[in-house]
Amino acid sequence: MDKPLLKALAGEAVRPAPFWLMRQAGRYLPEYRRLRATAGNFLDLCFSPPLAAEITLQPVRRFGMDAAILFSDILTVPHALGQEVRFVEGKGPVLGPLDLAALQPVGGRLDPVYETVGLVRASLPAETALIGFAGAPWTVAAYMVEGGSSRDWPEVRRLALGEPGRFAELIDLLVEITVDHLAAQADAGAEALQLFDSWAGLLPPAGIRRWCLEPARRIAAALCERHPAVPLILFPRGVGALAAEFAGIGDCVGLDTAADPAWAAAAVQGEAAVQGNLDPMLLVVGGAAMERAAREILSALRHGPHVFNLGHGVLPITPPEHVAALGRIVREAP
Amino acid sequence: MDKPLLKALAGEAVRPAPFWLMRQAGRYLPEYRRLRATAGNFLDLCFSPPLAAEITLQPVRRFGMDAAILFSDILTVPHALGQEVRFVEGKGPVLGPLDLAALQPVGGRLDPVYETVGLVRASLPAETALIGFAGAPWTVAAYMVEGGSSRDWPEVRRLALGEPGRFAELIDLLVEITVDHLAAQADAGAEALQLFDSWAGLLPPAGIRRWCLEPARRIAAALCERHPAVPLILFPRGVGALAAEFAGIGDCVGLDTAADPAWAAAAVQGEAAVQGNLDPMLLVVGGAAMERAAREILSALRHGPHVFNLGHGVLPITPPEHVAALGRIVREAP
Repeated sequence: MDKPLLKALAGEAVRPAPFWLMRQAGRYLPEYRRLRATAGNFLDLCFSPPLAAEITLQPVRRFGMDAAILFSDILTVPHALGQEVRFVEGKGPVLGPLDLAALQPVGGRLDPVYETVGLVRASLPAETALIGFAGAPWTVAAYMVEGGSSRDWPEVRRLALGEPGRFAELIDLLVEITVDHLAAQADAGAEALQLFDSWAGLLPPAGIRRWCLEPARRIAAALCERHPAVPLILFPRGVGALAAEFAGIGDCVGLDTAADPAWAAAAVQGEAAVQGNLDPMLLVVGGAAMERAAREILSALRHGPHVFNLGHGVLPITPPEHVAALGRIVREAP
Repeated sequence: MDKPLLKALAGEAVRPAPFWLMRQAGRYLPEYRRLRATAGNFLDLCFSPPLAAEITLQPVRRFGMDAAILFSDILTVPHALGQEVRFVEGKGPVLGPLDLAALQPVGGRLDPVYETVGLVRASLPAETALIGFAGAPWTVAAYMVEGGSSRDWPEVRRLALGEPGRFAELIDLLVEITVDHLAAQADAGAEALQLFDSWAGLLPPAGIRRWCLEPARRIAAALCERHPAVPLILFPRGVGALAAEFAGIGDCVGLDTAADPAWAAAAVQGEAAVQGNLDPMLLVVGGAAMERAAREILSALRHGPHVFNLGHGVLPITPPEHVAALGRIVREAP
């Protein structure tokens, strides 16, 4: 419990603020690209414990973040349920047709992920925490229904708003599986858990409450029974002022890039830790613009629990030396 | 000034709330599709006053909205500046390369738009207001820099965050042209004006303030000098709680789909009218789900000035009869 990340997630205003970056492992790192070139497809990589563990550790070794986040993908869950999932270079994920009745029990198909968690945990420096994660039910359902990424996500929006009874079956299933998946990561050694709801902002407020907030509440309650000491970070992207409602559920709320940290200090930080929220494009730009923006975030959130992070994932065009510079800025903030 | 829309924009809690819908003229209407099939390309349609006026009037004739919004496009401005703009069926706008030094004075190239405004104004029912509009500088710049619509808008984000001095030249130019374009619409008979900043949410808070809020402030101030009686509606999409900061600038703030009307009643309605914000997908779905959501919005905003609208544009797959039903719901709200 003396790891800085865990102290911040427990509500302590740790200074310097602990930091890690969403997608800190991945394509912007040459050592990742080298390893990626030797492996098969992307899912093979996620299901290969030694490789996934090595990728998880790469950024921590280089930059000394306060947390490693498991290298995996939110779509391992639909894959484990028997829906076809492929990653097409330059296009992103492509999923086979969704047939609720044909989905199968997960069985042991996610076991390699938990094995990776164990390998990483055994190799981490003593002060570095390990974060496990899952996609939130709404976001995973969005990919499952839409068959991949989409500009407007019309199918899943229409289903959620127009056939809520039918859609609830999918969400209920995903709540259950997500609890098991996160609990198994905690069993294997994950010390904090993050629920990624990247597409929460596609819904109207009542939809956000029903399909994002309520599932998060159920997941948090179930995890609290099974792993009361493992904190939960919620990341409901694009929900604006509704982010404050997630503070009553998770130990920490991740802010997206557009959120104002000063607003979050007032509306969120009293109830939960705040994580975020540098624009990943500022990490691409670097220099004085990045430094100014990072310092503003650190300053706005300095009176309460804060985990410094981006407001979205690291972009593949990010120069690794900018990540190193950002780490220094966070460590040396007044 | 006894038009319901104008009373609401002046700060009066008009009941029933006046309503209109973003993209209320367009592809979901069979009479639009018939007319569209006889015309050349999309920009030809925007620059043909009799056709554009007819399209503007079509939804008002069918559904009796409280406002007509000029049928035009935000990209008439880059076109008038000499950047190539084409609309490709199924793909959206495609713009030629941007060369700031090669942009030309607008001259009379937008005159057909103002002629359309005059034609519409002369044909509208006495109780129906005419809204003119323009894209906000940031959103228009996004298309100009990116060369069309984009998933992640990397070029314009990198330019705005990494080369603010150079980007400011484009924004300053667009502020000036936008003021002229909106003022000319008011000269021609537009009774209210809306500034669409559809992509404001791509920026971090400091960027939203610099590239969206400040330009809006300058545009509002200049319009206030030239047309003090013409109200301005701002629509900064995706800015979350920062929407409240736009209330000090415009007469009305348009909410996006994810915004909570109860939050806006507290944070915005004291300073400005609120417009919005039914999810357009609920207009596709129709029925009880649409009715419940519309009533919740009307109820949350009933104590202050409210213009009922969508939180984004009407989708092409919308059944016209759902629009008629929505109109009745708004008119008959308790």
